Amino acid sequence: MTSAPSCDTLIRAGILVTQDAERRILHDAGIAIADGRIAAIGPWADVKSAFRPASTMDLADCMVLPGLVNCHTHAAMTAFRGLADDLPLMRWLEGSIWPVESRLSPEIVHSGSLVACAEMIRTGTTCFTDMYLFETETAQAVERMGMRAVLGEGILGFPTPAYTDASRALAIAGELTEVTAGSALVRTGIAPHAVYTNSPETLRESFALAKRLNVPWMIHLAENAEETARCMEATGKRPVAYLHDLGCLSPRSVLVHCVDLTEDDISLIAASGAHVVHNPRSNMKLASGIAPVPALQRAGVNVCLGTDGAASNNTLNLFREMNACALLHKVAHGDPTAMPAPAVLDMTTANAARALGWDGIGVITPGSAADIIAMPLDEPGLCPVYTPFSHAVYAAGGHEVCLNMVAGRVIYERGSFTNIEIEELRDHARKLAEWVGTDGKSKTQN
Amino acid sequence: MTSAPSCDTLIRAGILVTQDAERRILHDAGIAIADGRIAAIGPWADVKSAFRPASTMDLADCMVLPGLVNCHTHAAMTAFRGLADDLPLMRWLEGSIWPVESRLSPEIVHSGSLVACAEMIRTGTTCFTDMYLFETETAQAVERMGMRAVLGEGILGFPTPAYTDASRALAIAGELTEVTAGSALVRTGIAPHAVYTNSPETLRESFALAKRLNVPWMIHLAENAEETARCMEATGKRPVAYLHDLGCLSPRSVLVHCVDLTEDDISLIAASGAHVVHNPRSNMKLASGIAPVPALQRAGVNVCLGTDGAASNNTLNLFREMNACALLHKVAHGDPTAMPAPAVLDMTTANAARALGWDGIGVITPGSAADIIAMPLDEPGLCPVYTPFSHAVYAAGGHEVCLNMVAGRVIYERGSFTNIEIEELRDHARKLAEWVGTDGKSKTQN
Ligand SMILES: [Zn+2]
Ligand SMILES: [Zn+2]
Repeated sequence: MTSAPSCDTLIRAGILVTQDAERRILHDAGIAIADGRIAAIGPWADVKSAFRPASTMDLADCMVLPGLVNCHTHAAMTAFRGLADDLPLMRWLEGSIWPVESRLSPEIVHSGSLVACAEMIRTGTTCFTDMYLFETETAQAVERMGMRAVLGEGILGFPTPAYTDASRALAIAGELTEVTAGSALVRTGIAPHAVYTNSPETLRESFALAKRLNVPWMIHLAENAEETARCMEATGKRPVAYLHDLGCLSPRSVLVHCVDLTEDDISLIAASGAHVVHNPRSNMKLASGIAPVPALQRAGVNVCLGTDGAASNNTLNLFREMNACALLHKVAHGDPTAMPAPAVLDMTTANAARALGWDGIGVITPGSAADIIAMPLDEPGLCPVYTPFSHAVYAAGGHEVCLNMVAGRVIYERGSFTNIEIEELRDHARKLAEWVGTDGKSKTQN
Repeated sequence: MTSAPSCDTLIRAGILVTQDAERRILHDAGIAIADGRIAAIGPWADVKSAFRPASTMDLADCMVLPGLVNCHTHAAMTAFRGLADDLPLMRWLEGSIWPVESRLSPEIVHSGSLVACAEMIRTGTTCFTDMYLFETETAQAVERMGMRAVLGEGILGFPTPAYTDASRALAIAGELTEVTAGSALVRTGIAPHAVYTNSPETLRESFALAKRLNVPWMIHLAENAEETARCMEATGKRPVAYLHDLGCLSPRSVLVHCVDLTEDDISLIAASGAHVVHNPRSNMKLASGIAPVPALQRAGVNVCLGTDGAASNNTLNLFREMNACALLHKVAHGDPTAMPAPAVLDMTTANAARALGWDGIGVITPGSAADIIAMPLDEPGLCPVYTPFSHAVYAAGGHEVCLNMVAGRVIYERGSFTNIEIEELRDHARKLAEWVGTDGKSKTQN
C-alpha cells in the first residue's frame, strides 16, 4: 500500500483560469504546490486525494489566475504619483519631474520601490520589468517583498545622480548581475533609456552586453511623433529602422511603446522577433497616440502590457491596463470585436513570459511557478460570473485581489502584506513626499 | 454661558475635497452633520469645539469627497455582466441580451438592482439615474440600500414584459411618482428609451408628462452613426434636430451618449440648456465612437458622466469612468491638457446635481446633503499624495472607498454594507445567473 505524496499547499479554487496552451478553465479545481512550483492541477476531489498537504487554502469562492506580469515600469517613480498632470509634456518634465529627479538618491529609490511593489502586489502583479536608476535598491525591495522582477539600470548618455557618463552606466548595468546572480526572484535586464538619450555606440555596446549576459535588452522606442522627428533629424532614419541598422533588433529586444510606427516599422519588428510592450494608459495620458497593436499582432509580433511609471499613469495596476487596452482599440478601430478579452489576458501572462524569456511564469500548469492570485466572486462588481476572461479584463479593477502568492509563498492576503507593515509603507511614502518637497506641489495644487 | 450645539456626527477628515464653487480643499478638516445635512465644515479644531456630537468618526488618514453621482445606468442589467463581450452589436443584442431580457420579471429586476446598488455603494457612488423596466423594484432596492436615485421606467414603443404598449408604458412611468412621493432618497424621471424605439407622439407625450411632474426627461441620443442613419431615413433629420423640432430639448432634457454630433447639433443642445451624459467606457467597449465632450463644454453644455449598464461596461464604477474620460479625450485630441482632473471630478458631482435638478448633492458645504465617501491615503496606490483631484481621477480605482454615507447614515464601511449581508447579495447573484441560464453561457464560454 502506497501513501499519497506530500505537498506544501493544497488550494481549492472555485474557478481556475490556467492560461495554459488551451486556455483551460477548471471549475472546483485543486492546485497542489510543492517547492514553489505547481505539482498538479485537476478536479478538486482528485487532487485532494492525491496529496498529503502541509497546509490547505480554501478559495472555493474565488477566481484564481496566474500572477500578472508587468513588462514595463519605473517603480521608484511612485514618488511622483500625481505630482503634476494635465500639462504639456515638456512643461511637465522640465517644470516638475526633472528638477526633483536631479536630486535622486538610493534611499529614495528604495522607498519608492517598496511603495511600488506594494501597489503591484496588492493589485495582482507577481513579476515586473523595471528601468530606472539605483536599481540595486529596487532589487533589495523586490527581494524583501517576495515578488519577481527583471531589473535594468537605466542607461543615459549624460550624467545622472547614479553615474557620470554612459560607460560608467554600462558598467553599473552589468554589475547588477552580481546582485541578482544568487536570486530565484530577481533577474537582470539591460535597459538603455531611448535612442534619443544614447549614442549609437552606447546602444550597440549595451546590446552586446545583453547578449554576453544572455538577458533581455529593453528600450523606450517610437513613443510619439516627436521622437520620430528627432530621430530622423539626427540619424536620417525612423527609430525602428535606426535600431535595426545598429543590429539591436532580435528576440532579445523588448521595445517599449511603439506608438508611432509605419507598416515598414512593423515588418522590421516582426521579422526580427523583437517583442513590443504596450502601455495604453501612459500613452493616453501623455497624448502620445495609439499604438497599432492589432496590426502588430497580425504581423505576428508578440505584444505585452506595461503600466509605465506612476508619474504618467498614475497607477501600477495591470487590471486597469488590460481594461484600457481592450476598450481603447475597440473604439480606435470602430470594432467591438477588436482586442478580445482572452487575447488581452495573454498579454499579461503567456506573452510576457515569452518576452522576458522567463519560463514557467504566467501560467498555472504542472511544473510552472506557483505564482497565483485570487479574487472573491462575491465582490458585488464581479457577480454574477459567466465568462472568467471577461471578468478579468472588463470587470475587475485589481483591488478585488485577496491573495497574492509568489513561488508558493503568500506575500499578500486580505489587506496585509507578509513582508511589510502598512505603517512602514506610510513612512516610506512620507519620505518620498518630503523629498519631493514643494517644488512640484506649489505648481499643481490647482 | 452657552453650550455648543449638538450634532449627530462629527468627522475628522485628513483631506476634504469640498467641490464647492471655489473647489476648496481643506487639510485636517472637521465636518459636522445634523439631520442628514452638513451643519458645518472648517478646520478640525474649530469644528470640534463648536459642536457636541452624538458620535465621531476619525478619517484623519483619509481623503473625503462628496458621494459621486452616476447620471446613467440600467441597474438591473448586472444580470448580464460579462454574459457576452467582444461581439458585433447586433449579434450581442439578438444572440445574448434580448432573448433573455424577453423573460424579464420584477423579481429579477429586484435582485439585479440590489447587486447594482451594492457595487455602486462599494465604489463611492451615492446617487444614480436609472432607466429600465419594473422600476418600482429598483426603487425598493435603492430605499433598502439607503442610497439616492432618479428612476425612470424605460418607455418603448412595443410590448415588453412590463407593459403591452407605449400608452401603458407612459402610465406606469407616471405612476412611479406615487412610489417615490414620500421618499427623501428616490425621485422619478421620465425615460423614453430612444428616438428609434418610440413614435414622435410618445416622445412628445413623455416630455409633456415630465413637464407636468416637473422631473427630468432622459433619453439615449445619437449613440452612434447607425442611429443617425436610421433617424435620417425615418424622419429626414439627425437625432438632435429631430428632438429639437419635437420640442423635447430644454433644461429638463438629459441626453445620454451624444457621440455622433455635428457642430449644428452641439449648437442646438447648447442653446436649449439640455444636459449631456457621457458614458466613455460603454462607448469604447461597443465601439460607438468618441463623444465630442471638449467641444460640448466649449459651447457651454453641462456634461456629466454615466456608467451605462453592466452589460456594456462591465462595471458601475464612476472612478473608472472618470479615469476613462480623462484619458480618452487626451489621446483623442493629442493634447495632454485636455479634460483636466478637476473638470472631470465636476462631471460626477456639481454637474450631475445640476443635470438632475437635485440641489445639495455632489458638494460638501454647510446645508448640503451629508453624502460623503472616504478613501484611505495609506492605500499603496494612493500614496504619496500631492494633488487630491489627481488621485480621484487618475489613481483611484473605486475599491479604495472605505466609507459611504448618504444623508448622514453610513451605508458601507470597510467591507460591510449596513443594509444587506454579503451572503444575501451572493444569493441574488446566483438567482440572476440561474435566470440567464445557459442561453448566453454556452455562446460565450470562449
Ligand atoms: Zn517608461
Ligand atoms: Zn444606456
